[in-house]
Amino acid sequence: MTAPQDNPLPKLGIIAGGGALPARLASAAQTAGRAVFVVKLDRHADDPELDQYPGITARLGAAARILDAMRDNACQDVVLAGKVARPSFTAIRPDWRAAKLLMKVGMKALGDDGLLRLVGQELEREGFRLVGAHEILTDLAVSEGVLGTIKPDDQALSDARHGLRVARILGQADVGQGCVVQQGLVLALEAIEGTDEMVRRSANYRRDGVGGVLVKSSKPQQDKRLDLPAIGLTTLEEAHKAGLRGIALLAGGTMIIDRSAVIERADRLGMFVIGIRPEHDGDPEND
Amino acid sequence: MTAPQDNPLPKLGIIAGGGALPARLASAAQTAGRAVFVVKLDRHADDPELDQYPGITARLGAAARILDAMRDNACQDVVLAGKVARPSFTAIRPDWRAAKLLMKVGMKALGDDGLLRLVGQELEREGFRLVGAHEILTDLAVSEGVLGTIKPDDQALSDARHGLRVARILGQADVGQGCVVQQGLVLALEAIEGTDEMVRRSANYRRDGVGGVLVKSSKPQQDKRLDLPAIGLTTLEEAHKAGLRGIALLAGGTMIIDRSAVIERADRLGMFVIGIRPEHDGDPEND
Repeated sequence: MTAPQDNPLPKLGIIAGGGALPARLASAAQTAGRAVFVVKLDRHADDPELDQYPGITARLGAAARILDAMRDNACQDVVLAGKVARPSFTAIRPDWRAAKLLMKVGMKALGDDGLLRLVGQELEREGFRLVGAHEILTDLAVSEGVLGTIKPDDQALSDARHGLRVARILGQADVGQGCVVQQGLVLALEAIEGTDEMVRRSANYRRDGVGGVLVKSSKPQQDKRLDLPAIGLTTLEEAHKAGLRGIALLAGGTMIIDRSAVIERADRLGMFVIGIRPEHDGDPEND
Repeated sequence: MTAPQDNPLPKLGIIAGGGALPARLASAAQTAGRAVFVVKLDRHADDPELDQYPGITARLGAAARILDAMRDNACQDVVLAGKVARPSFTAIRPDWRAAKLLMKVGMKALGDDGLLRLVGQELEREGFRLVGAHEILTDLAVSEGVLGTIKPDDQALSDARHGLRVARILGQADVGQGCVVQQGLVLALEAIEGTDEMVRRSANYRRDGVGGVLVKSSKPQQDKRLDLPAIGLTTLEEAHKAGLRGIALLAGGTMIIDRSAVIERADRLGMFVIGIRPEHDGDPEND
């Protein structure tokens, strides 16, 4: 339905994991008059909306098949989007291409993002241009400040700042970038379980008094084109159920999927959503 | 039964939280001919063995009562031992003495160990000598190397080293010092839930292939006299149930309670227990 323009946008390959983001990207790209080709990652991509776009389903380990399909379908830009739980080496069942890639780094040394970075580098080496989800859906990015009508109080702000500090330190170790903080106390740290699971767990360790804050950050060294941490309606609802009072997101380093719906719902639930920045963005040694 | 010696050891005050460690300390001190006085922290101290020693039960927030009781009973040395889950400000119900203490730092800014450090400082200011559990029960400390008969293989060693790095970085943020690593992947990070709970959870995220490793560290800035991280038989059994292959402990920075029983049981379960040190103990900039 999208007729080629005089100066058509390059075709977009979408390597799709779980959640709503990949289909949002496909839809936004098509609306902008751009052709898309979707690689649905087997056992990860779970949004039925994706089925309406041309593409294939492939195992995470089928690197050769994925690269060939994207080349054969004339993709120029590639975006990686959606949740991908890193499987064990055995579960990846790497083809020769994936195995060659994995051997470059050694599975032992891989942190949570090591694999992703590697995939990004390899796509560029193969001649594709890697683009970030926030470059296609520009309203995904989180800006600094209060995003809805509810403002955090002093305790909530203090919890948010403490959580951001903890999450940034966590990021140095290339592990999860989320935590829940209540009254200065870190109730839960995110590893591989994902944000929603961590938020649910935090309810078991909730203290009396004012509720806590969910904090999401990205790793200091994170490539913004690769899988920026994202929250959406589900996370907001889970945070509400767990008794949290709001969500603090690293400005410029996280995304909100379905932003207007999330903000509207947060307002209705009496929860704040804020974009914050680290207190010392520069060198902490300089005072 | 312990007659005073010519040069008697100073009386030991034990501020007791949960688990088996406080009673072990009391018993070891008495065996060494030393009088003890036990402050059982209400809702924390849970070992019935403690009831045989002179002492009182006091709320965590009853600082004046605790200090007075220890002074009235002529304690000179004081040891803090056992698990204490940090409650909310409301649950502490601070007396005037505790409130004064808490106001010094502000509850907002307290990390998991902030409160403990503060209590330690205050005890010293009040003229007590703060001693570490490992100074009384010298076999608690973990030395470097394989502690039982089972040796970790290369993957397990690599997981242990990665986990130690992650745990040390976590410690910089003054949060939990434990994690579970399997095949290079951090399955779980410890916040406030405690080691056993974290180990149980890690089983939900277990990957195919060889099992993971529980790693316990202490915080880089941790005062060794205050609550060094400890494992015992319960943690070992939980680790076994969760499919882990062994436990790696920071040498010189963690404790094993009931060491010989733990090692014997680990040998029987086919699990390793090792003491390890960070790879760069010195300045990481020097290569």
